[in-house]
Amino acid sequence: MDIENTIKSELIYSGQLLELRRDIISTTSGKSFREVIRHPGASVIIPYTSNNKIIFVKQFRYAISNFLIELPAGLIEKNESHKDTAQRELREETGYSAKKLSNIGKFWTAPGFCDELIHVYLAEDLSYDPLPSDLDEDIETIEIELNQANEEIIAGKITDSKTISALNMFSLLLKN
Amino acid sequence: MDIENTIKSELIYSGQLLELRRDIISTTSGKSFREVIRHPGASVIIPYTSNNKIIFVKQFRYAISNFLIELPAGLIEKNESHKDTAQRELREETGYSAKKLSNIGKFWTAPGFCDELIHVYLAEDLSYDPLPSDLDEDIETIEIELNQANEEIIAGKITDSKTISALNMFSLLLKN
Repeated sequence: MDIENTIKSELIYSGQLLELRRDIISTTSGKSFREVIRHPGASVIIPYTSNNKIIFVKQFRYAISNFLIELPAGLIEKNESHKDTAQRELREETGYSAKKLSNIGKFWTAPGFCDELIHVYLAEDLSYDPLPSDLDEDIETIEIELNQANEEIIAGKITDSKTISALNMFSLLLKN
Repeated sequence: MDIENTIKSELIYSGQLLELRRDIISTTSGKSFREVIRHPGASVIIPYTSNNKIIFVKQFRYAISNFLIELPAGLIEKNESHKDTAQRELREETGYSAKKLSNIGKFWTAPGFCDELIHVYLAEDLSYDPLPSDLDEDIETIEIELNQANEEIIAGKITDSKTISALNMFSLLLKN
């Protein structure tokens, strides 16, 4: 297994969200190149209510021209910890705040071309504390039990990878 | 929930793997823009052996400067079905061919900014049938039972989202 080293990194585009680079690299078999997206990272939240439901959000995703059912999530802002991101996005997207917020893992979403790392938070002891209506994101929320969410994964109704991954971690934690 | 419509799509970069676009869009609150990565899509394979082990691959991922343990996977090539991609990548990355290859679902890896869709295949009835050594990818393979793989997810040793998502689907199928 080769480690690939950077010889030269060319910035192709620097935007609001993404940075695209084209890097010349060295491998044991010679020079090659890699197209890489640099991403600020994100937090995803599993909001778990006192009656064992999980709060999902439904929103339009422009990149795939479709509505998706997802766990609440959002980008880490400058000088923000991923725990603070989780608390902020939970409130912006669902109106809830969590007294207990536990980091249960992390994963890379697309390591073949992108460095996005998502931190997974379990949010418990929730209280409804919505933002003023001009600040919220007007996203539809849906409360589903884990068993039903699992059925929707099998049925192809939940098709977002960060959501399916985070629910796997949560299922494994509940079993332990 | 708003649907966002494209007013204008500007091609920023068209590379070997990725295409980056900057689109002007209309929403109910006015004009905005979206940075979008166009991706050819991929297939991920769960190679399940006759003694109930799953074959993983370990490889260096340049975008995150790390070695990752993942399920075998790869990009859909031009004029290739995602099932053919699964069979081809399985052989290139592990040396195995599958007599039985079943599509068990699909998911979006990063729908906030990218249209990559990954198709999930369960590969059974495996036979070792490696490519000539100048064609294989020289990737290390590791055989692990599902229970042990789940422990490695919890322990933070398997951190690839497509792998964690595909294993969730597989676990749910085994339970049904």
